[in-house]
Amino acid sequence: MASNPKFLAATATVDHAAIQPLPNSRKVYVQGSRGDVQVPMREISQDDTPTLMGGEQNPPITVYDTSGPYTDPAIKIDIRSGLAPIRQAWINERQDTELLSGPSSAFGQTRLADPKLAQLRFNLHRQPRKATSGRNVTQMHYARQGIVTPEMEFIAIRENLRRQDYIASLKALGDKGQRMAELLLRQHPGQSFGASIPSEITPEFVRDEVARGRAIIPNNINHPESEPMVIGRNFMVKINGNIGNSAVSSSIAEEVDKMTWGIRWGADTIMDLSTGKHIHETREWIIRNSPVPIGTVPIYQALEKVDGKAEDLTWDLFRDTLIEQAEQGVDYFTIHAGVRLAYVPMTANRMTGIVSRGGSIMAKWCLAHHQENFLYTHFEEICAIMKDYDVAFSLGDGLRPGSSWDANDEAQLGELKTLGELTQVAWKHDVQVMIEGPGHVPMQLIKENMDLQLDWCDEAPFYTLGPLTTDIAPGYDHITSAIGAAQIGWYGTAMLCYVTPKEHLGLPNKEDVKAGIIAYKIAAHAADLAKGHPGAQIRDNALSKARFEFRWHDQFNLGLDPDTAKAYHDETLPKESMKVAHFCSMCGPHFCSMKITQDVKDYAKKMGIKEEDALQKGMQEKSIEFVKAGAKVYQRQ
Amino acid sequence: MASNPKFLAATATVDHAAIQPLPNSRKVYVQGSRGDVQVPMREISQDDTPTLMGGEQNPPITVYDTSGPYTDPAIKIDIRSGLAPIRQAWINERQDTELLSGPSSAFGQTRLADPKLAQLRFNLHRQPRKATSGRNVTQMHYARQGIVTPEMEFIAIRENLRRQDYIASLKALGDKGQRMAELLLRQHPGQSFGASIPSEITPEFVRDEVARGRAIIPNNINHPESEPMVIGRNFMVKINGNIGNSAVSSSIAEEVDKMTWGIRWGADTIMDLSTGKHIHETREWIIRNSPVPIGTVPIYQALEKVDGKAEDLTWDLFRDTLIEQAEQGVDYFTIHAGVRLAYVPMTANRMTGIVSRGGSIMAKWCLAHHQENFLYTHFEEICAIMKDYDVAFSLGDGLRPGSSWDANDEAQLGELKTLGELTQVAWKHDVQVMIEGPGHVPMQLIKENMDLQLDWCDEAPFYTLGPLTTDIAPGYDHITSAIGAAQIGWYGTAMLCYVTPKEHLGLPNKEDVKAGIIAYKIAAHAADLAKGHPGAQIRDNALSKARFEFRWHDQFNLGLDPDTAKAYHDETLPKESMKVAHFCSMCGPHFCSMKITQDVKDYAKKMGIKEEDALQKGMQEKSIEFVKAGAKVYQRQ
Repeated sequence: MASNPKFLAATATVDHAAIQPLPNSRKVYVQGSRGDVQVPMREISQDDTPTLMGGEQNPPITVYDTSGPYTDPAIKIDIRSGLAPIRQAWINERQDTELLSGPSSAFGQTRLADPKLAQLRFNLHRQPRKATSGRNVTQMHYARQGIVTPEMEFIAIRENLRRQDYIASLKALGDKGQRMAELLLRQHPGQSFGASIPSEITPEFVRDEVARGRAIIPNNINHPESEPMVIGRNFMVKINGNIGNSAVSSSIAEEVDKMTWGIRWGADTIMDLSTGKHIHETREWIIRNSPVPIGTVPIYQALEKVDGKAEDLTWDLFRDTLIEQAEQGVDYFTIHAGVRLAYVPMTANRMTGIVSRGGSIMAKWCLAHHQENFLYTHFEEICAIMKDYDVAFSLGDGLRPGSSWDANDEAQLGELKTLGELTQVAWKHDVQVMIEGPGHVPMQLIKENMDLQLDWCDEAPFYTLGPLTTDIAPGYDHITSAIGAAQIGWYGTAMLCYVTPKEHLGLPNKEDVKAGIIAYKIAAHAADLAKGHPGAQIRDNALSKARFEFRWHDQFNLGLDPDTAKAYHDETLPKESMKVAHFCSMCGPHFCSMKITQDVKDYAKKMGIKEEDALQKGMQEKSIEFVKAGAKVYQRQ
Repeated sequence: MASNPKFLAATATVDHAAIQPLPNSRKVYVQGSRGDVQVPMREISQDDTPTLMGGEQNPPITVYDTSGPYTDPAIKIDIRSGLAPIRQAWINERQDTELLSGPSSAFGQTRLADPKLAQLRFNLHRQPRKATSGRNVTQMHYARQGIVTPEMEFIAIRENLRRQDYIASLKALGDKGQRMAELLLRQHPGQSFGASIPSEITPEFVRDEVARGRAIIPNNINHPESEPMVIGRNFMVKINGNIGNSAVSSSIAEEVDKMTWGIRWGADTIMDLSTGKHIHETREWIIRNSPVPIGTVPIYQALEKVDGKAEDLTWDLFRDTLIEQAEQGVDYFTIHAGVRLAYVPMTANRMTGIVSRGGSIMAKWCLAHHQENFLYTHFEEICAIMKDYDVAFSLGDGLRPGSSWDANDEAQLGELKTLGELTQVAWKHDVQVMIEGPGHVPMQLIKENMDLQLDWCDEAPFYTLGPLTTDIAPGYDHITSAIGAAQIGWYGTAMLCYVTPKEHLGLPNKEDVKAGIIAYKIAAHAADLAKGHPGAQIRDNALSKARFEFRWHDQFNLGLDPDTAKAYHDETLPKESMKVAHFCSMCGPHFCSMKITQDVKDYAKKMGIKEEDALQKGMQEKSIEFVKAGAKVYQRQ
């Protein structure tokens, strides 16, 4: 096992740091209409407001939780056994699938029979599952039949984040709570660009969006460990984290580590982009231990099987790869079926040619054979496989721009139009589809991408890589791209594929994975706020109140990364006593503007009138002329 | 000197890391119409394209350089002596100023006379300078007289970045150069929202913009060491970096270090926000060693003088502070004259009250005295001081929002309207003005800020802090705010005040300063691209070409932070031989999409036809039916 010197299946363990609950957080489960719909969330408890500032209780906040069983201390984690198959009963009950005796792909059979792989192999006890002949097991198919699946109910509960409970907990505090509710539930109206998010998501709404093709639920019947989630522009904006080894670097253990680390910080899905040795075995470990959907780019593995010679790829080999991966449980496949032969010449004058690996592989194949892309010509056959396992399409943008200049060019937009045509083909088969988007796009060209995608792809969810808004910052492309991601998320993109600081430079390590995830959680949440997603501002409000009241621990814990926030604070003021101090290191005790504002409020209170009117009234009494003089300034024009 | 244990004036030295030229970069000076207009720029040389990819020369790229003499190995740096006064002759020649025998502020005299400060004091040999009686020495005054100053010529040359030389150097390479020029000079049309940037900036254009009030040149006659720069929306978007010690932390040496470090990475101006001990002495060291304009918030020091008791502030004390700082050479003052008494009550119901330190100080003063803000009532007297030294106003947004919810509220917008009125007062005195803006603003509310500011403040340059687009990421507010900064820069903001990862948590160290600067250089450049600033895309194009051609060193060196880019690359592939390899660690040799694209081009060449037509022609010959079938897809709808 020279290529995986660090990894032995028998001794594999998860990184301890990835299985601790976050500070002051506990896992809660919200039960649905049946006992086995148990929707996990993270509840963050808060300190009371200091007595001087009102001494009120601050009810806990519930946030979306992608970390799965890893952050539940009640669940024993053993990555050699994988996670519990929480969806198994739902799949069984539908009685439209059958167990196979073993892998039906030739490659899957070969790998299973190879004794040299024993030390690397995940010890899987489950047989692969497939739709029984003539059945279609996609969530889209059920949705179109009018069936609300447990997956859909799970998602509806998950997206609502117990907001009604939070509101009730505020109001239960009496007069004080009523005032707090008025403050903490405030939200600015959004600018939604046509998205329409209900204030309370119902299972029926989820069904309707999936039936319409405006949302997808990626959950392969062979990945029953996954916690259902939805990707669509009428839901919270999601993010994806890429992991994967290459010929040059990484072992299986490192990739499993990156996955658990990525979901701890908020990855809604993980793509395994491995291109090196043992792709099959690495993927098995990742899927069996992943509570989030796993995506792949099957052409990477297919190319590996022909020793990197794109021209040797065949439909039969690719087809076997799809089945191999579908039977392992991959939830969505990136398929570069839009890289049509006729578009390839359009890239010859580009600044950076074809930068998508999958796109360049298919372009090379097309040129070598002088034939149309076999993914395009066999697209309906691919659909037939997808519906046997409920794998969703992520229609790849193989011709995405690799530099600002190449943005929105003929090749890119030609391919997008084709992806729109293929969307209709997939929908004819009730197969779920999302559409991949760029890439490198300067800000003024971002909206055109979204508008054309919505139009040409009939509102199928858009899934973009950034976009990066400038090319001049290698080492910081999580930032160049978070700028573009926030914007395109606001305009309607349903999922944002992260970019790490190592983009263009190297493979991300765990630290890079976290940096990419946090940057993208920021972009996604900024987009939710801008769209006016109901309740999106609750967490901002709670954190701002904590900040204003010098509840340092709550400020850290309500944030996306409590560990880093606390570490930064402690660099200057390490003592625990400083975390209850009513000032911080930026200004010191005299200068603190928060403290002065509190003085302003205290002053108002001292005057013995209702706080909200105090200052206004004080002014009227004592400085009536100034109020009059200033009054005209308030009028907006 | 217990409070500054690390600092002794006699032994002060600059950090060695801040005075090395960046890799493959050299300082060049472009001479203007007179010998002493020597405009510094950074020239980055590039490797030749590998032979396999065409073997062409890649002419050097010129980038904007804020680092001053520190990166010129020909200049000896001694921070005890300060920088050479490059503008002194220009100031002298105007014959409208006089040398004072010493500081005319009472405080300045006291500090100078205090023997206990000897070890801390910068050894200044220059006397302060002031306008002779009845004269106005602002650049705006000259501009309105029709005078093009050497400062304006310097700026025009600086903003043009030798673009014409670059174009000529490409064309000088013959046919190959002509093709390269077609590629490298490409730029997408911008969406400018009313900004109008000429393809070549003339000194007359600079004069005109300054006369109109649409741009400012902050350069106090007592800061002759500064290299002139302009802030206005018809020029490149600029960024500011804040430094400054507090009562809790930092020494003079650290602040000088942060300044030289900040300008190395691209800070166009530095604000010294010190609030602790020795503010006066710290500032002197910073100004004497700074080639970029220095801004301050004089009320911080004034408050220090009354032991932190806002109610004890007086106009006389503040006036003395303005003169003290003006005679040291501060280039712009943040003045919170818009925090009018009548607006203060409007903040009582806010989520986070008043978060600006200056704003809260003035609010407290107003309440304590039941009087209108003395900065507002004495505004014309402040103008009189500003024009004696050419200090520019940065009209402070003391009521800026400190949380998403407080964005664009009555208090904030009331103050903005007042800043518009004050702008007209300042302009009446030919005093230069920029307007400070928020703060915490969700994306959908950002544009309203810009539009109202342009309208109410008659196009005076806007200077915003971020804005932060969400409140939930303490520890990452350089990112939450870079997202907002890029947008508001695109919409027309002239200068972006950086936010570091430590925002809300602690004082930034050098690493944080760099992280903030790079995030904001990204935001500013993304904004320049989106506005369609002429030539903005040249650097992106050059870097993308280097990336495509596997010129690793050039990719690093053309980026904003060559050190980090190289370090990230070397983590996976440390050997020098790997920097000429035609693949990288992400994909390995087989999978590289760049390599495959090159194969596509090579294939075209092998067919013996002109590269641009090769693939098209090949397709037509061999696969005519596919081209025909695909042709209809190219048509845009």
